[in-house]
Amino acid sequence: MDICKHNLILGSASPRRKQLLEDAGFLCKTTPINAEESFPAHLQAQEIPLYLAHKKASNYPFPLKENDVLITADTVVWVKNTVLNKPENELEAKQMLQILSGKKHQVFTGVCLTSSKKQVSFYDETTVFFKTLTEQEIIFYIRKYQPFDKAGSYGAQDWMGLTSITRLEGSYFNVMGLPTHKLYEHLQQF
Amino acid sequence: MDICKHNLILGSASPRRKQLLEDAGFLCKTTPINAEESFPAHLQAQEIPLYLAHKKASNYPFPLKENDVLITADTVVWVKNTVLNKPENELEAKQMLQILSGKKHQVFTGVCLTSSKKQVSFYDETTVFFKTLTEQEIIFYIRKYQPFDKAGSYGAQDWMGLTSITRLEGSYFNVMGLPTHKLYEHLQQF
Repeated sequence: MDICKHNLILGSASPRRKQLLEDAGFLCKTTPINAEESFPAHLQAQEIPLYLAHKKASNYPFPLKENDVLITADTVVWVKNTVLNKPENELEAKQMLQILSGKKHQVFTGVCLTSSKKQVSFYDETTVFFKTLTEQEIIFYIRKYQPFDKAGSYGAQDWMGLTSITRLEGSYFNVMGLPTHKLYEHLQQF
Repeated sequence: MDICKHNLILGSASPRRKQLLEDAGFLCKTTPINAEESFPAHLQAQEIPLYLAHKKASNYPFPLKENDVLITADTVVWVKNTVLNKPENELEAKQMLQILSGKKHQVFTGVCLTSSKKQVSFYDETTVFFKTLTEQEIIFYIRKYQPFDKAGSYGAQDWMGLTSITRLEGSYFNVMGLPTHKLYEHLQQF
């Protein structure tokens, strides 16, 4: 089956996103894009990763050829009407995990598909439920796993995700960084 | 943090279960157990994997030492009050995927923890929603991925899971074969 007729370019340095694309049957080359991850303060929830996915697409440094499709994406953790970014240090990581402990939060991934002719964007939302974390678990996790490159200070696919996520409502792969089922659908129609 | 004081033995040949245990921070040795996967016909839903997890524990061929804890597990796909086993051939795989197409189903994993002194068992349930599959997608998947070792004829972590699962309600790792958050909790109390 010809599952993709495009020449895909993943505009991301994330090895997880590349792996998810490959596992979903899409071969792509990757080009990291420099884009400062700031956004207007009035943006809410899915508006933030959609804005950042567009911004990354705008910053792609090369002209797109006839058959090229650029994939850019951004994932945010959204809790109590606030976005949790990547933690800058151990204290911030600890504070984020204390906010997530024993509660549910939303993970939004915004995706933007860009060719020389058109641009389509979409997002997906997953609700993630965390068990109550002990102080000891939080400190163990931060010291051992150093989650400073992770929005919300945790990885769904690492120790924290495996031991402390008690329930998902939505797509697991969206939490990992790419809603592969929606991407598959949109690429077929693109 | 001392996350496990036991000497864990995984009674399974599944590389996925071993990987999930390691990712959850548990080192274990593995010993495949020969147990025929038949069960009494009156069993329903979670009763089936709980029965099979116990059966595997009973078939463990060595005496358990003081600090040993044997982990056995079984996962079933349950749809329309019927269990979907591993498909025996391409036709059966096709029929199973046609049953799952466009519908939701349940995945139950039963887990049994056994030491020389006691035995504890538990299960987890995840609801999985599938998009409508085309004939072309079903045939492509079966020929390319050969899902004959998979209950229900699909893997949550392969092409079918990534492109066609639109929503989960519950634990993703339970669908992969081990509800790691519950295992973590039970091992701490064992």
